[in-house]
Amino acid sequence: MVVVMQSGASGEQIQHVIDRLVACGFDVHRSTGESHTVIGAVGVHPDFDPRDIELLDGVREVVRITQPYKLASRAFRPEGTIVNLGKGVKVGGAELVVAAGPCAVESKGQIDSVAESVARLGAKVLRGGAFKPRSSPYTFQGLGEEGLKLMRVAADRNALLVVTEVMDPSQLSLILDYADVLQVGARNMQNYHLLRALGEVRKPVLLKRGMSATIEELLLSAEYIMSGGNYDVILCERGIRTFETATRNTLDIAAIPVIKKLSHLPIFADPSHGTGRRDKVVPMARAAVAAGADGLLIEVHPDPEHALSDGAQSLFPDQFGKLMGELRIIAPAVGRRMA
Amino acid sequence: MVVVMQSGASGEQIQHVIDRLVACGFDVHRSTGESHTVIGAVGVHPDFDPRDIELLDGVREVVRITQPYKLASRAFRPEGTIVNLGKGVKVGGAELVVAAGPCAVESKGQIDSVAESVARLGAKVLRGGAFKPRSSPYTFQGLGEEGLKLMRVAADRNALLVVTEVMDPSQLSLILDYADVLQVGARNMQNYHLLRALGEVRKPVLLKRGMSATIEELLLSAEYIMSGGNYDVILCERGIRTFETATRNTLDIAAIPVIKKLSHLPIFADPSHGTGRRDKVVPMARAAVAAGADGLLIEVHPDPEHALSDGAQSLFPDQFGKLMGELRIIAPAVGRRMA
Amino acid sequence: MVVVMQSGASGEQIQHVIDRLVACGFDVHRSTGESHTVIGAVGVHPDFDPRDIELLDGVREVVRITQPYKLASRAFRPEGTIVNLGKGVKVGGAELVVAAGPCAVESKGQIDSVAESVARLGAKVLRGGAFKPRSSPYTFQGLGEEGLKLMRVAADRNALLVVTEVMDPSQLSLILDYADVLQVGARNMQNYHLLRALGEVRKPVLLKRGMSATIEELLLSAEYIMSGGNYDVILCERGIRTFETATRNTLDIAAIPVIKKLSHLPIFADPSHGTGRRDKVVPMARAAVAAGADGLLIEVHPDPEHALSDGAQSLFPDQFGKLMGELRIIAPAVGRRMA
Amino acid sequence: MVVVMQSGASGEQIQHVIDRLVACGFDVHRSTGESHTVIGAVGVHPDFDPRDIELLDGVREVVRITQPYKLASRAFRPEGTIVNLGKGVKVGGAELVVAAGPCAVESKGQIDSVAESVARLGAKVLRGGAFKPRSSPYTFQGLGEEGLKLMRVAADRNALLVVTEVMDPSQLSLILDYADVLQVGARNMQNYHLLRALGEVRKPVLLKRGMSATIEELLLSAEYIMSGGNYDVILCERGIRTFETATRNTLDIAAIPVIKKLSHLPIFADPSHGTGRRDKVVPMARAAVAAGADGLLIEVHPDPEHALSDGAQSLFPDQFGKLMGELRIIAPAVGRRMA
Repeated sequence: MVVVMQSGASGEQIQHVIDRLVACGFDVHRSTGESHTVIGAVGVHPDFDPRDIELLDGVREVVRITQPYKLASRAFRPEGTIVNLGKGVKVGGAELVVAAGPCAVESKGQIDSVAESVARLGAKVLRGGAFKPRSSPYTFQGLGEEGLKLMRVAADRNALLVVTEVMDPSQLSLILDYADVLQVGARNMQNYHLLRALGEVRKPVLLKRGMSATIEELLLSAEYIMSGGNYDVILCERGIRTFETATRNTLDIAAIPVIKKLSHLPIFADPSHGTGRRDKVVPMARAAVAAGADGLLIEVHPDPEHALSDGAQSLFPDQFGKLMGELRIIAPAVGRRMA
Repeated sequence: MVVVMQSGASGEQIQHVIDRLVACGFDVHRSTGESHTVIGAVGVHPDFDPRDIELLDGVREVVRITQPYKLASRAFRPEGTIVNLGKGVKVGGAELVVAAGPCAVESKGQIDSVAESVARLGAKVLRGGAFKPRSSPYTFQGLGEEGLKLMRVAADRNALLVVTEVMDPSQLSLILDYADVLQVGARNMQNYHLLRALGEVRKPVLLKRGMSATIEELLLSAEYIMSGGNYDVILCERGIRTFETATRNTLDIAAIPVIKKLSHLPIFADPSHGTGRRDKVVPMARAAVAAGADGLLIEVHPDPEHALSDGAQSLFPDQFGKLMGELRIIAPAVGRRMA
Repeated sequence: MVVVMQSGASGEQIQHVIDRLVACGFDVHRSTGESHTVIGAVGVHPDFDPRDIELLDGVREVVRITQPYKLASRAFRPEGTIVNLGKGVKVGGAELVVAAGPCAVESKGQIDSVAESVARLGAKVLRGGAFKPRSSPYTFQGLGEEGLKLMRVAADRNALLVVTEVMDPSQLSLILDYADVLQVGARNMQNYHLLRALGEVRKPVLLKRGMSATIEELLLSAEYIMSGGNYDVILCERGIRTFETATRNTLDIAAIPVIKKLSHLPIFADPSHGTGRRDKVVPMARAAVAAGADGLLIEVHPDPEHALSDGAQSLFPDQFGKLMGELRIIAPAVGRRMA
Repeated sequence: MVVVMQSGASGEQIQHVIDRLVACGFDVHRSTGESHTVIGAVGVHPDFDPRDIELLDGVREVVRITQPYKLASRAFRPEGTIVNLGKGVKVGGAELVVAAGPCAVESKGQIDSVAESVARLGAKVLRGGAFKPRSSPYTFQGLGEEGLKLMRVAADRNALLVVTEVMDPSQLSLILDYADVLQVGARNMQNYHLLRALGEVRKPVLLKRGMSATIEELLLSAEYIMSGGNYDVILCERGIRTFETATRNTLDIAAIPVIKKLSHLPIFADPSHGTGRRDKVVPMARAAVAAGADGLLIEVHPDPEHALSDGAQSLFPDQFGKLMGELRIIAPAVGRRMA
């Protein structure tokens, strides 16, 4: 941290700042220039609030120079992390990994049909929700454990892995029985109860970026999970809220190369939630891969027009197949391959 | 809902849209103009996803014309709602109500001191957090039930009411024993498990706007609580995330008159979280009252420089006193008074 | 336009709205439902301000259903527009067109070197600025006409076309002598004096999206140029301002497929300004092409570390060459080819 | 500027950074800590682009510690600036100054009527536009010089000053003949040709914040004018673009106290453009004053329903009168008075 004093700051004001920093446990060195005194404070105190110094008399600015995350930073593992999902599927290496499936598991017929389609077309992971709290209390809320069972059976029959969302620590033991990867939704990105619980399990976590979260905040949430001992975190860009309303969210494709530089963790993109409309999913899926994403999360439904939720952003199986063909063309441009 | 067809839409395409709408339960009337066919669909189907129609062939645009909330709308109670907090304190009427106190309850000495100060200076409600999940697992996480007890005692001694945050349905029965008003934090604005639980209690709820939530989404969350039978909801503007970084968030003061027009529910402002810095809290508190807010939520700490959390945005008691004096001047300009 | 009246609106209020609409020249039809009266107003009155109706007593909402642009809309030319730049280079067809060059023309040596490199590597258009108003009045402001001359000579020698920015109608006749394509910068997207002047010339215009402009506003600015008679407009996505600060702007890649659906005009992307940093330019250029862009605008400099402006976002020639190779792999995935 | 090297940076990389900084004219001092080397660079080089250093090998982060503006900073004139508009009207002192009038001057009758009303109700300055470039080329474009004349006559008859917008340096000499204060519109905030021209005149400038401009960028534009020798700059907050669409823009009221701390320049608010709707103008005007604004810019029209532009955001004269009465109550709360 660097504290820049105002040009007219008094000796007393400077000393007060130094005393506060020392009291907080920092090593302090002072540098007096022609117009400003600059105070450097060295040490890692993750909970220190720089605003406490900013408000002291004579202070012009406080600049944080240490990244507040460590385990999630690229420096921690310069070579990058490969997350092993099981059954030979690895995220973060040369292979592009696609997870596909419906927004919600609706019935045995539906999930069996999707699983068969997406497996045949090259997906390695089946996605689907079992718990769907909705804005109206009168509508479909998911099949619960029954949905998890159906998804597991459908996945196993097609040699797929399972990713599904966990919303609350209380659901965790149940979901661990059925899922290979635990998804954290955008609204829970800063649910610290949940993140703490996930730090203690030993299955990979797919952590979605919140709609108004900065990239740094996403990495801080990953750090939270990792500090609990679970290093198998996959990040996921799914769109941020901006003034543009032509798409539901603005998929921040640049977050992919930014995260690749800042962190060693793999990064997925979710163009289904990122755009909210089927006809935009395919171009944005291609864009994410071209920008260097390690994988994709795509909603596919055998009959999107009758889906119980989010049908508008679900691909028809044949659209998904066409997309997979296009991704096979693009992958080599970014040094990737698809199974 | 109004569906505007493309100018070249075929009769078949038009019929397909009509069939879908009828199948969804809408009353449909068709209006054929010179260049466009426009289809009106009447009925309330809260879970209907307009995107399902938007994606049909021949459709140019779908326009929703019914507000998706009803209980929270101004039309439901044109005269406005007055929420009775108890002990004669009413929110939404002529009296401006100020809730003040520390971010977190830290000790008996601290909460007693704050309670005495803010009561003497005109606050009617004591605010304070007992559960503080923080971004670092190693730091102060709140005193839990002990904090609730201390707050209750301090409030009672000074004839104050208590508002405190509930984060999870599992905390609810405990917090109900101590609090007069239940606060929903910005990150939980769309936590439907929690909103449902709050719909079933019979104490007022203070619902904070999420950092990236539109005003409509805030009203939808209020609707969710109200649909459970609890009509005593107080809304709270606390800042949205924008590109400007000079303040932690951008306090959307205009949300106050906007909500006054759209809804009958009272609205508070929280300038402490909305700005993140003590020196901006006072002017923004004045601005919120001048714009018509029914009340304020203000962080006050007897010794902000040593606060265990958010000291930078907490006022010193004498700053709070000065602010209350300024608010007494402003209140008559908006037809309000302070006790 | 559809006017939704409040549920309790009086007959008098409804009649007042109808009278105002008729006075404004609309054909009006009224539809009375169980709870609401809805008034449809048909006609195109581009300057009508819907807020004038919104503020009348008894009105709940006014919904515009006609797109405010016509010449720029997809319906105007469903087959899409191909803009002929000259020398056989066509934008909007099967060929992906890349414009490359320095931010500013600095010297004969510099522009000759860049032109030779980018032509050899597959660019068809040379970009470069001759007028560079800068935030400091003491710094390099561009070479002016001398810069235009140098660029023209360098382009001709390498069989390239020239695109350069025009900032003011007063510069137009000069720039027309040297340039093949006239660029409108993001800050001038709504400079109507300039747009009007460009409507009268008969050379293609490359119109950049403003940093806080919606896609609709971009299309309205294109409409403005087209209404003057110049239909050769190429749009360009170059990043919008959002809360995320890890990149200079957020390149809105989804704008590409959105515009493809709404408009017949070709669309470029400018990943150099969209990200502001060299190491992000390459992945975002690939992403834009994968999402369906018709072309790219890329900053290339023979010695970026000593560029007089924007060196940080300029590619080294060999990086540009590598990028072109990657684009050659990606292009067939979107039905494109590169020369 | 502080350059933070990566923890594993080599001696060679560090030396390369130092060499570049020295070559750019900075005084450099190096500080080697346990984990990082930190390099301080002292000196003012406004055109230096920190990204050039950020991209060097081994660099983790570059932190700018000098504000890029100087003349506009609070330190330059800690006591604050009072801008004398003439006729005894001073902005930035104890008196709150209100400028009011129509969006556009439409006719002698209109401007005479408004001028008489607003003068009687306490405004000191008449606002009005003579040049109105509009999004449609077929609509009212302002009365031009005739409008300026009418405004001057109406103002003089009522002892008002005149503020009007200048859009282009070519209009300047004409407008200087009629206006007391020159307004720069939000879209021109970074029009450097115009800012340079205004630096050379000796009349006060009212500089509006761009819709997507940060507060720092606003101050940089003020600096640009001041560096030309014209120190009489009044800033004006008029709303920023955010995801919230309930109001046309989000009026950033917090910008007022933020600017008061960063700069010595006075600051106005424009609630008419900041909200876009008449019924929101009054509460936001009160809020701006309560937050510490030095003055207001308010649209008033004798017959808003028939205004040729922006009628929806114009107050009726009696609404303006009521607002002035409310401001008289609020002003003492912020140590102000109204004439």
